[in-house]
Amino acid sequence: MRIDHVAVAVKDLDSAVELFTKVFGGEVTWRGRVEEQGVEVVRITVNGVDWELLGGIGEDSPVTRFIERRGEGLHHVSFRVDDIESEVERLKSLGLKPVSEKPTKGSKNSLIFFFHPKSLRGVLLELCQHPE
Amino acid sequence: MRIDHVAVAVKDLDSAVELFTKVFGGEVTWRGRVEEQGVEVVRITVNGVDWELLGGIGEDSPVTRFIERRGEGLHHVSFRVDDIESEVERLKSLGLKPVSEKPTKGSKNSLIFFFHPKSLRGVLLELCQHPE
Repeated sequence: MRIDHVAVAVKDLDSAVELFTKVFGGEVTWRGRVEEQGVEVVRITVNGVDWELLGGIGEDSPVTRFIERRGEGLHHVSFRVDDIESEVERLKSLGLKPVSEKPTKGSKNSLIFFFHPKSLRGVLLELCQHPE
Repeated sequence: MRIDHVAVAVKDLDSAVELFTKVFGGEVTWRGRVEEQGVEVVRITVNGVDWELLGGIGEDSPVTRFIERRGEGLHHVSFRVDDIESEVERLKSLGLKPVSEKPTKGSKNSLIFFFHPKSLRGVLLELCQHPE
């Protein structure tokens, strides 16, 4: 496992992109919508690890609700794996609680899978598998 | 700037260390107290980036209060820099609000400096400079 990105829920994507690229000096390497998660995403790569800025699409988006409840801030951490299906099974066997049934489409055309924060000391963990 | 660690506030360090090393497969590379921050710290290195697990020392520890207020979970993200004094000045000039006056001692014998989450979309940012 290798850290892939750290995700931040923000109210306004454009101003956040401007601030993060100034502060961290990275560059935008992907921007798009992930409809399955109800988010618009900007990825900023800083020395091989990305910030993933998340803006909610509409009031029902989990990210919009996250911000209403907790404010803007750190949302999840994602680790890159080679074989997401087998890693999901391994982490389930360690007691981590899956959020969904199956991997779904994420940013950068990856496959992603979330584990519930309650099973990892409050940390929302994502696994991601990138296309080769 | 390069990501150095992602910090997690936990109630019980020992059980969290056991869980995180099983899930992420890394190894403990440092353990100690950082009295200035009121924390006991365990660093687990996973492919060059650390998890920093933080346990509060006593009821007045900022980490103890963080957990009371928000529960266990993601606490801050730390970026490694070569010259912390000049990076602090650069980020101040971008409008980031410092938490303290001067860099202080952190884990792994680093120098650390925090910027307030209100000035970075809810993200508590640490800069760290490691001894050479």
